[in-house]
Amino acid sequence: MEITSFKSIVNNYQTIFFDAFGVLKNHQGLLPGIEKTFDYLGERGIDYFIITNDASRGPEELALDYQRRGLKQITKSKIVSSGMLAREYLKYKVKSGLIAYLGTAQSAHYIETLGLKAVSIADLDLEQAEEVSALVFLDDEGFDWYSDINKAVNLLRMVNIPVIVSNTDKSYPVSRKQVAIAAGGIANMVQDIVGKKFIKFGKPDAQMFIFAYEHSVKKGAVQDKEKILMVGDTLTTDILGGNKFGLDTVLVLTGNTLEKHADTRISASGIIPTYICDSAVID
Amino acid sequence: MEITSFKSIVNNYQTIFFDAFGVLKNHQGLLPGIEKTFDYLGERGIDYFIITNDASRGPEELALDYQRRGLKQITKSKIVSSGMLAREYLKYKVKSGLIAYLGTAQSAHYIETLGLKAVSIADLDLEQAEEVSALVFLDDEGFDWYSDINKAVNLLRMVNIPVIVSNTDKSYPVSRKQVAIAAGGIANMVQDIVGKKFIKFGKPDAQMFIFAYEHSVKKGAVQDKEKILMVGDTLTTDILGGNKFGLDTVLVLTGNTLEKHADTRISASGIIPTYICDSAVID
Amino acid sequence: MEITSFKSIVNNYQTIFFDAFGVLKNHQGLLPGIEKTFDYLGERGIDYFIITNDASRGPEELALDYQRRGLKQITKSKIVSSGMLAREYLKYKVKSGLIAYLGTAQSAHYIETLGLKAVSIADLDLEQAEEVSALVFLDDEGFDWYSDINKAVNLLRMVNIPVIVSNTDKSYPVSRKQVAIAAGGIANMVQDIVGKKFIKFGKPDAQMFIFAYEHSVKKGAVQDKEKILMVGDTLTTDILGGNKFGLDTVLVLTGNTLEKHADTRISASGIIPTYICDSAVID
Amino acid sequence: MEITSFKSIVNNYQTIFFDAFGVLKNHQGLLPGIEKTFDYLGERGIDYFIITNDASRGPEELALDYQRRGLKQITKSKIVSSGMLAREYLKYKVKSGLIAYLGTAQSAHYIETLGLKAVSIADLDLEQAEEVSALVFLDDEGFDWYSDINKAVNLLRMVNIPVIVSNTDKSYPVSRKQVAIAAGGIANMVQDIVGKKFIKFGKPDAQMFIFAYEHSVKKGAVQDKEKILMVGDTLTTDILGGNKFGLDTVLVLTGNTLEKHADTRISASGIIPTYICDSAVID
Repeated sequence: MEITSFKSIVNNYQTIFFDAFGVLKNHQGLLPGIEKTFDYLGERGIDYFIITNDASRGPEELALDYQRRGLKQITKSKIVSSGMLAREYLKYKVKSGLIAYLGTAQSAHYIETLGLKAVSIADLDLEQAEEVSALVFLDDEGFDWYSDINKAVNLLRMVNIPVIVSNTDKSYPVSRKQVAIAAGGIANMVQDIVGKKFIKFGKPDAQMFIFAYEHSVKKGAVQDKEKILMVGDTLTTDILGGNKFGLDTVLVLTGNTLEKHADTRISASGIIPTYICDSAVID
Repeated sequence: MEITSFKSIVNNYQTIFFDAFGVLKNHQGLLPGIEKTFDYLGERGIDYFIITNDASRGPEELALDYQRRGLKQITKSKIVSSGMLAREYLKYKVKSGLIAYLGTAQSAHYIETLGLKAVSIADLDLEQAEEVSALVFLDDEGFDWYSDINKAVNLLRMVNIPVIVSNTDKSYPVSRKQVAIAAGGIANMVQDIVGKKFIKFGKPDAQMFIFAYEHSVKKGAVQDKEKILMVGDTLTTDILGGNKFGLDTVLVLTGNTLEKHADTRISASGIIPTYICDSAVID
Repeated sequence: MEITSFKSIVNNYQTIFFDAFGVLKNHQGLLPGIEKTFDYLGERGIDYFIITNDASRGPEELALDYQRRGLKQITKSKIVSSGMLAREYLKYKVKSGLIAYLGTAQSAHYIETLGLKAVSIADLDLEQAEEVSALVFLDDEGFDWYSDINKAVNLLRMVNIPVIVSNTDKSYPVSRKQVAIAAGGIANMVQDIVGKKFIKFGKPDAQMFIFAYEHSVKKGAVQDKEKILMVGDTLTTDILGGNKFGLDTVLVLTGNTLEKHADTRISASGIIPTYICDSAVID
Repeated sequence: MEITSFKSIVNNYQTIFFDAFGVLKNHQGLLPGIEKTFDYLGERGIDYFIITNDASRGPEELALDYQRRGLKQITKSKIVSSGMLAREYLKYKVKSGLIAYLGTAQSAHYIETLGLKAVSIADLDLEQAEEVSALVFLDDEGFDWYSDINKAVNLLRMVNIPVIVSNTDKSYPVSRKQVAIAAGGIANMVQDIVGKKFIKFGKPDAQMFIFAYEHSVKKGAVQDKEKILMVGDTLTTDILGGNKFGLDTVLVLTGNTLEKHADTRISASGIIPTYICDSAVID
């Protein structure tokens, strides 16, 4: 395993796609010094986007969170979340009716800003089932798991509606040692029980990268995929997805993949990053 | 699809294995007239056992429930539950330490009657993780799903212990139209998240049928598999398992498989019962 | 199930995406009258593309085949094949070395037109394994299954290289009653045995639709997804993929989904087309 | 990882179950010195059985092969193969008709000794499909993969018959570095394509251990599971299956699991052997 310096690589690209958790921040907050990376990119006119499997909050709130922690450069327009893709689906494919969701009131932002009527699964009466036109998994919090996951299963047995999963991650870290089951993990269980095909948004799916790519094109950034670099800590989402979309990829060792496991995991999975770097911090 | 009379079949066998839910009872209670079936079998000296994916209660309590509802013939010795297999596993393979479980206090019966120390996942402190020697999924009730399923995931990340799933069913009916997620459904989600191999007991697994078979042999019943008939309402558990164990099988249409779907499901799955009968009621 | 006339729908769109097999042609050749559909679209200035999971031949040859059968309107620029996506991947991600492939010499077109050196797995000596920089599944013909599929498995045990699957279909029809295993079916078996993650291109994956979409944008067609209609005969590829990408979808009953099964399959899968039409033939 | 001496363990048991490949032999032949293990067991009156996922030859031939190589102690009655379980299934469940099979003429032994009429898939005419009453996967050799695996797929689309897989292994070693795809690997591909549920026999399935257990009981050996030890080189078949059946288990490091990988694999899989020994050779 050859470790390359992140600084020595970035100058070859015009746009950098960053995963968030494990790359820019961890359970303790921002990675110390990560703001210098964005200073460096800013000085050289290298554009960047944060591509995250997150639908718990809208892009504005996600950006505000970075700013509050000291990363002033991250504005709303720099965020591409899987929640935005779920929103896009609803915009094109679901024009009316109640949209039932599992998640916090905050996460319902993605539905409500479309002018659609969102109802938390907790507040849904199954007598109303016929009025529901879609079910969306947004977050693992904001509802009672026992009564409301069971309610979601029964809703899907009563009506044949599209089910949108806006975060494909199965779990996420909550402390140095512990994780929590994510919306994607719950959605997989429900899908397995009802036997239907859910519509899932998130890395490694190509749609996530295309959305970021089109986003970057709109903002005036380059179109050439060879000038985009994807930086992530997880082989099965960030690196697999970046590779498949045709991008060069960097595996950083500050999150899910520890240095001692990197070689084994790369050869066991066959998912091969273009580069391996200790960290995305440039100092 | 040829429908055969159950009465015309049973006389060819010396032992009948019955599934419980969808065959002897449904969400409303016992199937009307089902006691006549047991009278008939009793008169002719045909033995019977109830083979059920259930670990929510011990065999004694399961039998008492039948008796209370009016089926006096069902005694403890007639019950073969997947919980009994989980208990057997613990007896042979786990001799000491704490046994953590997801389920009601009632379901912990299977652990406690072995003299092992059971601790509900709700009461477990993860600081004690090193003292835990196995985790058992017993029931979908008796704990807080959000905090305790997450706690189970983290326990399995901290210690490498066997995980026993004592009911492989993903869901079970709670009313005419509604189902609830079963312990097996929850266990599948946790297994998928932690990436380990759980030890699962229940139909269609052969071990369930062998346990019943040995049970029946001990009680003096026949040894010849050709003289045993398996009766069930679910192709993927009762019929598949019975077939694989070498038994003749009857699909009854009083539960999971409705008459209008039977042909389609049999040809789509390739799981072929020896007979199809309207019901296991003999009148 | 409400059947809509295809003619009554198409005028609401500016671009039509057609699946090939089961929509435009079947095992006997072109669907009788299908050329009138293209006359109709041409007269009204409605653009169209054929989106096909096919890597057995290059787009030029695929187009020639339509022309030879009498569909003069189908030119190379109207074809979007999964092979083109595999080619795109190789172009961006694999710049040198031998590209081993399973398929006919004809299918190697996708590799050779990039200036890369293609070697049929049949001609590969495993002593050369270290020189191979990627393995591509292109077609189910052109090699000896026993020796060459086994050789592919062993190649992947020797070197850690990306594996590209250029057709995700598991089988394809060869006569009214019979099918053949497709490259995607073989690739799934190999992937399961070596335990690695392959890079797969084809419907229902979003990348297929994006490629067609960008293709159509380049050709001057519209950008608004609401003005694109996807027409297919298979729920799990054409309709699922089209829906997920945000397009309106038409299920036609001339291929994989027979009229008598349509309702059952839609409600069992939860994959819901916008419209159901007897056929894509406009007369 | 604590390594225990195999000799120090065996005296605590009355019967030893051995896996074959990776434990008693490898691609070069018998493990040097393994005959001393059987001398040792013989002297102490410890019984033994070989439990193998193999249906390529009957138990008599399998035993002869050991004897020819110098292991005189292995007689037919000491062999328990997955082919014997497939045979048992056919005996109880398929009484007439043609039995189609994929395998060598030698492997058809399991069918023919039942008095059933076996026909190689290679010799089957699909016009006869209606006469076929079961399909059995016996071996990966003895037929043309391209034409005959495709023929098997089409047979299963024409008639709804039980499919028996008599070896669940996906691959097997053929030299120090290379493997070959096994019958179980081919069967998985066909099952995935036709979407039916196959009946599979082999470790880790409990039925394999029960068969050996009943076998050992018939031969007068003990009934107490605590007095049986399972010895194998593969966590996911030998150790998982032995554990689930309630046996003590030994992982030996002479086959699939190398010493350097043992700890990682045990903690990643959660499959925990009772003991780890360098080898089953006692000298």
